[in-house]
Amino acid sequence: MLRDYDLAFETYGTLNADKSNAVLVCHALNASHHVAAVYEDQPDEHGWWDNMVGSGKPVDTDRFFVIGVNNLGSCFGSTGPTTMNPETGKRWGADFPLVTVEDWVDSQARLLDQLGVTTLAAVIGGSLGGMQAMSWAIRYPQRIRHALVIAAAPNLSAQNIAFNEVARQAIMSDSAFHNGAFADYNTVPKDGLTVARMIGHITYISDDQMESKFGRGLREGLKFSFAPEFQIESYLRYQGEKFSEYYDANTYLRVTKALDYFDPARQFEGDLSRAFAGITARMLVISFTTDWRFSPARSREIVKALLDADRDVTYAEVNAPHGHDAFLLDDRQYHAIVRGYLRGISTGAAT
Amino acid sequence: MLRDYDLAFETYGTLNADKSNAVLVCHALNASHHVAAVYEDQPDEHGWWDNMVGSGKPVDTDRFFVIGVNNLGSCFGSTGPTTMNPETGKRWGADFPLVTVEDWVDSQARLLDQLGVTTLAAVIGGSLGGMQAMSWAIRYPQRIRHALVIAAAPNLSAQNIAFNEVARQAIMSDSAFHNGAFADYNTVPKDGLTVARMIGHITYISDDQMESKFGRGLREGLKFSFAPEFQIESYLRYQGEKFSEYYDANTYLRVTKALDYFDPARQFEGDLSRAFAGITARMLVISFTTDWRFSPARSREIVKALLDADRDVTYAEVNAPHGHDAFLLDDRQYHAIVRGYLRGISTGAAT
Repeated sequence: MLRDYDLAFETYGTLNADKSNAVLVCHALNASHHVAAVYEDQPDEHGWWDNMVGSGKPVDTDRFFVIGVNNLGSCFGSTGPTTMNPETGKRWGADFPLVTVEDWVDSQARLLDQLGVTTLAAVIGGSLGGMQAMSWAIRYPQRIRHALVIAAAPNLSAQNIAFNEVARQAIMSDSAFHNGAFADYNTVPKDGLTVARMIGHITYISDDQMESKFGRGLREGLKFSFAPEFQIESYLRYQGEKFSEYYDANTYLRVTKALDYFDPARQFEGDLSRAFAGITARMLVISFTTDWRFSPARSREIVKALLDADRDVTYAEVNAPHGHDAFLLDDRQYHAIVRGYLRGISTGAAT
Repeated sequence: MLRDYDLAFETYGTLNADKSNAVLVCHALNASHHVAAVYEDQPDEHGWWDNMVGSGKPVDTDRFFVIGVNNLGSCFGSTGPTTMNPETGKRWGADFPLVTVEDWVDSQARLLDQLGVTTLAAVIGGSLGGMQAMSWAIRYPQRIRHALVIAAAPNLSAQNIAFNEVARQAIMSDSAFHNGAFADYNTVPKDGLTVARMIGHITYISDDQMESKFGRGLREGLKFSFAPEFQIESYLRYQGEKFSEYYDANTYLRVTKALDYFDPARQFEGDLSRAFAGITARMLVISFTTDWRFSPARSREIVKALLDADRDVTYAEVNAPHGHDAFLLDDRQYHAIVRGYLRGISTGAAT
């Protein structure tokens, strides 16, 4: 159990006088609190949602006070497997507890208490971030006026869980994993993380997009070897290896488990509309036509349950070729929808 | 290079007087020459296509002389990475050459020479076996009267290659792989093979089938651990571990590469109809609605190219829930199509 914890966060824009313009951005698997802009000493490290959040952007920091938090148990500054366990003087590693989507939301609420923000104008997130936005609407109806649930699902399908499990298996069977105590051996399960990320990456891109981007293109003619030959192979290996250099394996295992477990309908015998019964926030649900990880059908389940519960919901299905990754990309229609929706949100004293 | 090689094969039924009733069955990734029936001393080891091939079955051994061959380079009796290299006195291991779909077809043709079979009534295969049937029709038009191409594709998509590459990466990064020389170390890359098979298995089953078979079902209630909790997890781990106990890693790498390379249209600037121009066999192409590994759209590419080349083709799209695996399963509509098609094939003296 955690006695206390730190959360790394960033804010953009200014909290207005009646504190009615705060927007919380929730991140997905591998992102962080660094949502937008750049640091003075790292001019190339743009925030992961820099195309969405900033001055004059869809989430307009001239109008909103935007908060980015690194999730509890992640590896970018908040307390997690890579930080010190004060009781042992060593890194938490495999002893770090499992943290759920609900735990993230609760810890974010405590951060808002510290910041003096009672009510959020909106919570916004894509993928696992969208699940947090959904969970916010369920757990803190009195503290949130709008929830933007993008490229998400009401829970993971068996196939989603299967992909997560294979990725975990790749990490756990890496001989450098040492049951999660790899830091004690001054190593990291780089190969396992690489394979895990390669698997994940396949599910982030649409089949068509992969085809049009890489097709059967070869790097330098056919020559029969197990080195990367097809362009898609070298692309995936590059993505996997890059990821393995900055992401923590114990964090990966826990975050994917949090995804697997998320299922707000579970305590209502699978009836999602009952899970949504107490929601008072207005909901915007967005899906992308070619997303096969969390397909539009999964977003429609959310929308249907909200309608069944007589809640206020707007739904947009964006025609985008990029698959699940579309929620991170600069798509004109998608950004116009978010921009238009947020423009309609009142922020009290601010205009 | 291979100076000579052995091929393991089995036959069922009787070759008729004018040798016009021979049917060659081509296998996919992990199957073998043991297509049908059981051995006396292994009464539980049914052939991998025992529901399709046998007396009174769709491929009726009362009428046809059926030949099953273990592909060259496989690991079930034919010369391959697990057999001895006569030049070194050691197993071939990583030194075994890469073998293509075309090599398989050519070696099968040499086996038929040995058996005195000049012309095949039909070649039949699913998945990679279907690619061999297609290649037979292209390479040996004078030796084949019918080709049954089931659950196949004219080549692998970028996504197909991506899944293969991740599986290979899992095997090659296993510390027990030793660059393919694992036999010298008396070990096998069991973990890598397990992960590879788990990945493959996800692509063999339809999303819906996985959902209805496993859903979010738990093995014994939620209890937060990295042991398999969801039923889909234990199922996949079981499948992966079982596979890792009998399949050779070097074979896996080579067979998936043969899949990646297969592309008969390649030497015709991608024009599949030109690759098909010399085909004289009648073709039956079958796909399954929920197959997302080699979707019906991929089979329709084959059919369209055959029609563009003015070849004789029949196409059936079977409504089956099982995904790619459907080609191995006992589906009534599917079996009726194969049965009916083969019934219409003349076999000279045999009736």
